[in-house]
Amino acid sequence: MQHVDQLLVGGIVLTMNADWTIHRNGAVAIQDDHIVAVGDSDSILQTYTATETLDCTGQVIMPGLVNAHTHLPMSLVRGLADDLRLDVWLGYLMPTERVFVDKNFVYLGTKLAAAELILGGTTTFADMYYFEGEVARAAAEVGLRGLCGQTVLKFPSPDAETYEMSLEYTEQFIQEWQGHPLVIPAVAPHAPYTSTDEILVECARLAQKYDVPLIIHVSETKQEVEDSRTEYGMPPVPRIKKHGLFDGKCLCAHCVHVDPGEIRTLRNHNVGVAHNPSSNLKLASGIAPVHEMLTQGVHIGIGTDGAASNNDLDMFTEIHLTALLAKVATNDPTSVPAKQALLMATRLGAKACHIEDITGSLEVGKRADIIVVDLNRVHNSPSFVYDPENIYAQIVYAAKSTDVQHVMCNGQWLLRDRQLLTIDIEPVLQEARALALKIDEFVREYSTNIMAKLMLIGSFQRQESFEIQLKVRFNQPDHVQELLSHPDVEIVKHSHYRQYDTYFLFGGTEAGRVRYREDDYIDAEDNVTNVRARLTYTLPTKEREFDKAVLLSHSQFYAPADRPLRFYREYFKATEEREIHKERMRWQIFYKGVQFYVNVDTILHPDARNRYLEIKSRTWSLRDAEYKASLISEIMRDVLQIDESERVAAEYVELAATAIE
Amino acid sequence: MQHVDQLLVGGIVLTMNADWTIHRNGAVAIQDDHIVAVGDSDSILQTYTATETLDCTGQVIMPGLVNAHTHLPMSLVRGLADDLRLDVWLGYLMPTERVFVDKNFVYLGTKLAAAELILGGTTTFADMYYFEGEVARAAAEVGLRGLCGQTVLKFPSPDAETYEMSLEYTEQFIQEWQGHPLVIPAVAPHAPYTSTDEILVECARLAQKYDVPLIIHVSETKQEVEDSRTEYGMPPVPRIKKHGLFDGKCLCAHCVHVDPGEIRTLRNHNVGVAHNPSSNLKLASGIAPVHEMLTQGVHIGIGTDGAASNNDLDMFTEIHLTALLAKVATNDPTSVPAKQALLMATRLGAKACHIEDITGSLEVGKRADIIVVDLNRVHNSPSFVYDPENIYAQIVYAAKSTDVQHVMCNGQWLLRDRQLLTIDIEPVLQEARALALKIDEFVREYSTNIMAKLMLIGSFQRQESFEIQLKVRFNQPDHVQELLSHPDVEIVKHSHYRQYDTYFLFGGTEAGRVRYREDDYIDAEDNVTNVRARLTYTLPTKEREFDKAVLLSHSQFYAPADRPLRFYREYFKATEEREIHKERMRWQIFYKGVQFYVNVDTILHPDARNRYLEIKSRTWSLRDAEYKASLISEIMRDVLQIDESERVAAEYVELAATAIE
Repeated sequence: MQHVDQLLVGGIVLTMNADWTIHRNGAVAIQDDHIVAVGDSDSILQTYTATETLDCTGQVIMPGLVNAHTHLPMSLVRGLADDLRLDVWLGYLMPTERVFVDKNFVYLGTKLAAAELILGGTTTFADMYYFEGEVARAAAEVGLRGLCGQTVLKFPSPDAETYEMSLEYTEQFIQEWQGHPLVIPAVAPHAPYTSTDEILVECARLAQKYDVPLIIHVSETKQEVEDSRTEYGMPPVPRIKKHGLFDGKCLCAHCVHVDPGEIRTLRNHNVGVAHNPSSNLKLASGIAPVHEMLTQGVHIGIGTDGAASNNDLDMFTEIHLTALLAKVATNDPTSVPAKQALLMATRLGAKACHIEDITGSLEVGKRADIIVVDLNRVHNSPSFVYDPENIYAQIVYAAKSTDVQHVMCNGQWLLRDRQLLTIDIEPVLQEARALALKIDEFVREYSTNIMAKLMLIGSFQRQESFEIQLKVRFNQPDHVQELLSHPDVEIVKHSHYRQYDTYFLFGGTEAGRVRYREDDYIDAEDNVTNVRARLTYTLPTKEREFDKAVLLSHSQFYAPADRPLRFYREYFKATEEREIHKERMRWQIFYKGVQFYVNVDTILHPDARNRYLEIKSRTWSLRDAEYKASLISEIMRDVLQIDESERVAAEYVELAATAIE
Repeated sequence: MQHVDQLLVGGIVLTMNADWTIHRNGAVAIQDDHIVAVGDSDSILQTYTATETLDCTGQVIMPGLVNAHTHLPMSLVRGLADDLRLDVWLGYLMPTERVFVDKNFVYLGTKLAAAELILGGTTTFADMYYFEGEVARAAAEVGLRGLCGQTVLKFPSPDAETYEMSLEYTEQFIQEWQGHPLVIPAVAPHAPYTSTDEILVECARLAQKYDVPLIIHVSETKQEVEDSRTEYGMPPVPRIKKHGLFDGKCLCAHCVHVDPGEIRTLRNHNVGVAHNPSSNLKLASGIAPVHEMLTQGVHIGIGTDGAASNNDLDMFTEIHLTALLAKVATNDPTSVPAKQALLMATRLGAKACHIEDITGSLEVGKRADIIVVDLNRVHNSPSFVYDPENIYAQIVYAAKSTDVQHVMCNGQWLLRDRQLLTIDIEPVLQEARALALKIDEFVREYSTNIMAKLMLIGSFQRQESFEIQLKVRFNQPDHVQELLSHPDVEIVKHSHYRQYDTYFLFGGTEAGRVRYREDDYIDAEDNVTNVRARLTYTLPTKEREFDKAVLLSHSQFYAPADRPLRFYREYFKATEEREIHKERMRWQIFYKGVQFYVNVDTILHPDARNRYLEIKSRTWSLRDAEYKASLISEIMRDVLQIDESERVAAEYVELAATAIE
């Protein structure tokens, strides 16, 4: 007789191995963190004695579920806003995250989410969020297995003002956690459309340097694919392949809009895919071609996505939906049968996460990630056994997450008789509720007044993070000719506008401001040839100065303004309104090969005396911003020979205030 | 102060009334079976004292859910067969129902289902099944409100060999239950495609005679709509409208494939619709245009359908799916927001069932059908209140049926702290499991051997129930000319075949038999112009005799045979095989305006001596069958003057056996 730590006996053991082995009266033997035997109860009991033996008679013993895509800390914003268009929804989520997401938020949210995962039979998750070290810390504490993906994106994020900072933080994070028995650190460029090519390349390089997985959202919406075709001449899949993301262990979330060629690409490069049915439905993204991907041999798992877009982390719901949606999508009720859907949530999901060697099935040598499920409740009775595989349908079509009785991860019990063993849940719930009250107050005060209203009326796009700008008082128009005729300058385009700006201000710097701008295009005969109106929303300014140029780190969103100014006036009910009219001569130039805009502005209203010259550029990269700022300083100093005292730090909206006073 | 029976106080009261009134600290007062007050706790407590007061602090008090379409007794065949095409699935379900469905099955299945409904917060259901009196009896016993629809269809059913018997039984059933405080009897013609025009007309007449609802499956699949267009020149909705079904209180289940015109028809006639998202997905029927129906003002509720195609009766799942599917179907995440989906499962569902006056919302005077739901569990925490309507999203997107704490129907408590009060569930479960073992054995023995195999390989169609046939030994070919030239006879068509029949028999009469028939079409020059192969499955024969004709009540299914005979031989592994070859001269005639087929068959193999004459017809109606049988007797006696002694009662397959012996 061999002695082991634990024996689970007398249950129906679904191994989810390659042979679909089921032991109707089965047992599993566990030593330390791994499985040492799986088989019929009788033969296991003849071979093993154990410190602890759990009788699972009448219950199902199966692998812990793998949630292949989630954002655990977002459990704290569950139900904050629903039934909205993506842009409007982000209008609630984004400012909330900007203000509230810090290390404590991430740790607390992960604890709350972990409790839900365990109660629902999930033992492995693949996460993507900010401050991912806190996700890892919470997972390690509660005993869950986690692929923890540190987010990198071109926008300023709650844990990094620039992607360069993200990349540094990610590398430190990997170094800190690599080799942990439960945590697998990962690099997570958020999505192709939120990454520059450089970000993609750097992330791929980092993942390969440490041989860690790379997680990315891919082709979630049709719009994303269309935009990628327009901007890069190809859909997201070939674009990220080109930048090396498929050379390592890649896990792509969503893949709702992928064509047969892209599916083959994913298969050929062993790319994992995480299917998120609830989220894809709720945001109206579409139905992913799961049947086609499975048929082609793609490693496809199932995820819940974050609780903000789901609104729970219930893998039983997602497995159920996966099986149902495939049928209606293919018009074939035999598509993705129950056992295939369950495989996606276990061994195939582990494969998608590139950790099939350690979890996803009950096989000797694998980690002991095991759940015990009661299939004898009212809603799952009676049952039929003429076909042994009926059990998969019982789990997929009738079982609920609340039928999970016991959960073990890495050989450690996390749940017994539905009692959480590694999380003291009451203080977590209390802290979450206290935080929710603050978020509630914030959303009530802030977003419902401006941001939400703004988001509700248009499709805003985010501008590059960094606006590098130099502005000087400018009463010598000749100087601009000096600049334009300089040997290092190439003029690309010239235009002439009359600009009528109305700024809506909301009292307090937190609220940001909205600008309604009408651009009248003027031709050489001083005729108005075209009129364009745009709305720009600017978050509170964060400034940095470099040398003589001003480096602004605005968060700006812009959209076409398709309603009259009167509408916006009544709609926003601003606490203050400012008007500025100006004549703008604009040149798009290259200086030493770098693109800038040069504006010569003559103010028409309110201080109809001054003229200003602006040199401007935009970028996502801090490094690039610094370089461009230095070039602007150079132009001012060496080309224009303008004295530093002429520099104007204020923006026009501020100048208008001065003028009005 | 006024004294009442019960007070529910301190909860968030969702009234689901027309104003969407929510009382954040609310209360409901109940006297006998109805609601006497709904409002803020403070004011209710100042006005009422009660025999029993339930503190619902932190919980939601809302209307009991309305399951607008189900087949409760099918809980007993939950999970019997899944992931199959509809025809194959019916191949499992149909013979099982034929053998097992009796009064006890219906009563037991309803008890089991009722327990699940109550545990999941449903207080009203709309059912359609056989022996519906037993559904009513079980509902009345456990205290659930039920629209009980007695099925009428053209096939023989477990409770009636003919639809005439069904109609009689239905009328008795209505008389017995009309006026019951919980049971509302209803007429349920199964579907347009399983009803003759006469059945539809009779059902509509019956429903109007007693002013009871009429329940019918409508436009569930695309095929059904196409077939209706082919056969009747119009889709199912106008067809049933034409036969008067919309003149009363009609409830149509499914309506997956209805066009804008049909939607307007449904609205204009106050027809209720029951949307069944899980079932429609699982059977790959499609996604119903719920958003469009709601926009047009159709009264549309939500149902679970039967547990055999779902596989549970969880309204929380269906509400969730309703909200999600509408978004992906319309490509708009604002479609069918949470509160709209919840309305469909409460007041609007009650309206669809034509009982909005008594249930579906918490309003004074309505019956006390109330549930209390706990929204503070881990999977539903935290929550946000800046928008009071967030509560609807909490229920729809994150709550589970297991969050239901208390359930009251008609003023009676059915569930308290998740304990069933009116059902002793253990004996029900035990009896259900015992029955499941028998069904299991039956399916293993019977269906896996023949029926299932047969269903797996083709799309079988059911033939008319009654085959009326007369067969005589016939060695005077002149007589047929006498028949054909008779003044009461009109010849419609003549054809000539050579028929090669192979019968597969399976030992024992229970198994039925399969016939593989090759028809060679012969032209006037004795050339084979076309070949057709068909497979026919015949259930064990039930015969009746009328006068001199034989009236057969076969259950026959036929399908094109698209594989070679060798395949079927190997596939079926029959215990016995019989061959019959014959030459058939066939005439399609009208005799006194009624259609018959006349066959003159010359046997080629095995007893190549005999010649037979057959006169045949088919119908769904017993009355029509009897009439046709009498006409056949008349032809034999008066036109052919054939002696009764020449009559052959045996079928060809039996003659073949005799010949071989």
